[in-house]
Amino acid sequence: MEPVLGFIGKVHSELKRKQDCPLQENEEAPAARLEIFSEYSAGIKDIKKGSQILLLTWLHKADRTVIECVMRNNFTSPKLGVFSTRSPDRPNPIGIHSATVLSVDDRFIEASALVVLDETPLIDLKPVRN
Amino acid sequence: MEPVLGFIGKVHSELKRKQDCPLQENEEAPAARLEIFSEYSAGIKDIKKGSQILLLTWLHKADRTVIECVMRNNFTSPKLGVFSTRSPDRPNPIGIHSATVLSVDDRFIEASALVVLDETPLIDLKPVRN
Repeated sequence: MEPVLGFIGKVHSELKRKQDCPLQENEEAPAARLEIFSEYSAGIKDIKKGSQILLLTWLHKADRTVIECVMRNNFTSPKLGVFSTRSPDRPNPIGIHSATVLSVDDRFIEASALVVLDETPLIDLKPVRN
Repeated sequence: MEPVLGFIGKVHSELKRKQDCPLQENEEAPAARLEIFSEYSAGIKDIKKGSQILLLTWLHKADRTVIECVMRNNFTSPKLGVFSTRSPDRPNPIGIHSATVLSVDDRFIEASALVVLDETPLIDLKPVRN
């Protein structure tokens, strides 16, 4: 099986550029609208208002050559191995985000506070584990 | 950027077949040995004994055509949208697992209780968010 991702949808957000993004979801991130492509929409039929979900995104603007990096834009601290950071710049730039579902309308989900750039591809949704 | 994953390593586990696997990590899962390929080993230099990590795996034996499924092998209950489940059978079969690092030896990490089949490819490691 070839490890090629197929996008299930995309994110619509008012965050248009990297510099618009707060560094963590709890720093005043806006709500976002998740569009699920028609062929996958049966997969969200049991997602309801109030559901706690994990979103997996493909961070399409990332630099995949990064193995060591600085944390949180602190350019004077020593470099860390990238796997000890949440940097979007990493070999496989997959973002994991948790959110609360605010509403669902057909194949669109309104989700709480998300630091995800507009037009970012969605690759998976999972329930938060209880 | 093509959404093709590059494997950063693989899992060595005593779980050799799907039927060996408990359904959740807290149901007596064994420890596992994570092998990181040489070209990515600088990325784990700051992972230490006791670190809490998330592992992302490529569930290479999954059925990617599944959009609706039953939960936890309960074949009499109604089918759920796959994005409301943690089923490995899903369009982009990426597993998310949390573990504690038991030891690190060069490019090998011993990790606590993991329900991951032997030889499963690793695609990312991230710190658990505080």
